[in-house]
Amino acid sequence: MCDYQTSKSYRVRQAPKRASYDRALVHSILDEGYVAHIAFVVDGLPVALPMFYVRDGESVLLHGSRKSRLVKHLVGGAPFCLTVTHLDGLVLARSAFHHSMNYRSVMVHGRAERVTGEEKTRAMALITARVRQGRPSGERPANEQEAKATEMLRLPLVEVAAKVRTGGPLDDEADMALPVWAGVIPMQLVFGEPVRDVASVPVAVA
Amino acid sequence: MCDYQTSKSYRVRQAPKRASYDRALVHSILDEGYVAHIAFVVDGLPVALPMFYVRDGESVLLHGSRKSRLVKHLVGGAPFCLTVTHLDGLVLARSAFHHSMNYRSVMVHGRAERVTGEEKTRAMALITARVRQGRPSGERPANEQEAKATEMLRLPLVEVAAKVRTGGPLDDEADMALPVWAGVIPMQLVFGEPVRDVASVPVAVA
Repeated sequence: MCDYQTSKSYRVRQAPKRASYDRALVHSILDEGYVAHIAFVVDGLPVALPMFYVRDGESVLLHGSRKSRLVKHLVGGAPFCLTVTHLDGLVLARSAFHHSMNYRSVMVHGRAERVTGEEKTRAMALITARVRQGRPSGERPANEQEAKATEMLRLPLVEVAAKVRTGGPLDDEADMALPVWAGVIPMQLVFGEPVRDVASVPVAVA
Repeated sequence: MCDYQTSKSYRVRQAPKRASYDRALVHSILDEGYVAHIAFVVDGLPVALPMFYVRDGESVLLHGSRKSRLVKHLVGGAPFCLTVTHLDGLVLARSAFHHSMNYRSVMVHGRAERVTGEEKTRAMALITARVRQGRPSGERPANEQEAKATEMLRLPLVEVAAKVRTGGPLDDEADMALPVWAGVIPMQLVFGEPVRDVASVPVAVA
């Protein structure tokens, strides 16, 4: 897979040594996440909203109420910035200046496309499968009214940049002998034990 | 503590029943997080960047390189939107339409203030303490050059809104008997075991 051919204006400016345009890396960061922050502009002012998403090949799918401000703006062709960030750890250095954090992030700029017809049904199924986390399907699919109330958006992966920091502190040579704890406190988003809804009827699957 | 007196244009529009302007709730959501997504507008286009932050009373502190695009824009008085989101779980319903997620988010709109002088030293110490996670201090403080390269920004908590979803699926009555697993898969950001930097000199503290 070749790298993303991201335009200069959408490439990483700050600490470009941590930038990557590698397609497999971008996919892996997106595939690990559930919530993206979608920024758009309303009357000249920025708004960033957390949205559930799923990657579908070379695009990201979002869904939302047809009446929502984000959906209205994006359907209307407003530019978006999608950012997905995984915080992997706090990095404690031997100097305050070199304290840092480990993270993997992806930023995508562009304009969204409305997903309709059979593509919409497929997109909704992808979102549903992502929520379900491998559990067997069996939930009632959206009826006509529900599907009508839900807008599906496709955000193309064209103007894409990843930024990643890994590893331990990068201290100045002169600070290496300071008697202070230095290292990484790892962080991770983990799943807990599923909690079955009390009103449930008996089913075979956990 | 009285609620935030958030202007109408910055109140939650979508699913307002999940909105809150409660000060203690907003503080607790902010205090649990490490990374905020900061949206701002560059040449009419939205940008959302992940930034380390710490709450300081009725404001949020950010730091960044003086040369960074975000810092330049915010120091220049550009409006921001700060969003902090905790994903607490995936909610599996008995119908696709009612699948959801549990989350706690805070959104803040406004313009940042530059922090200077003694206030800047104090703000930098708050950021450092947040990274250190209760470990004893002892790292070398920023020297003059490092402090000069770092800009500290204060984002006032005035136009503030929280949005929270908790609990199990909210299914339609007609779907309650469907033989499908329904409930919540909890999610949580957890710390792992600290990994000491191999180049460290012996210290008493873990």
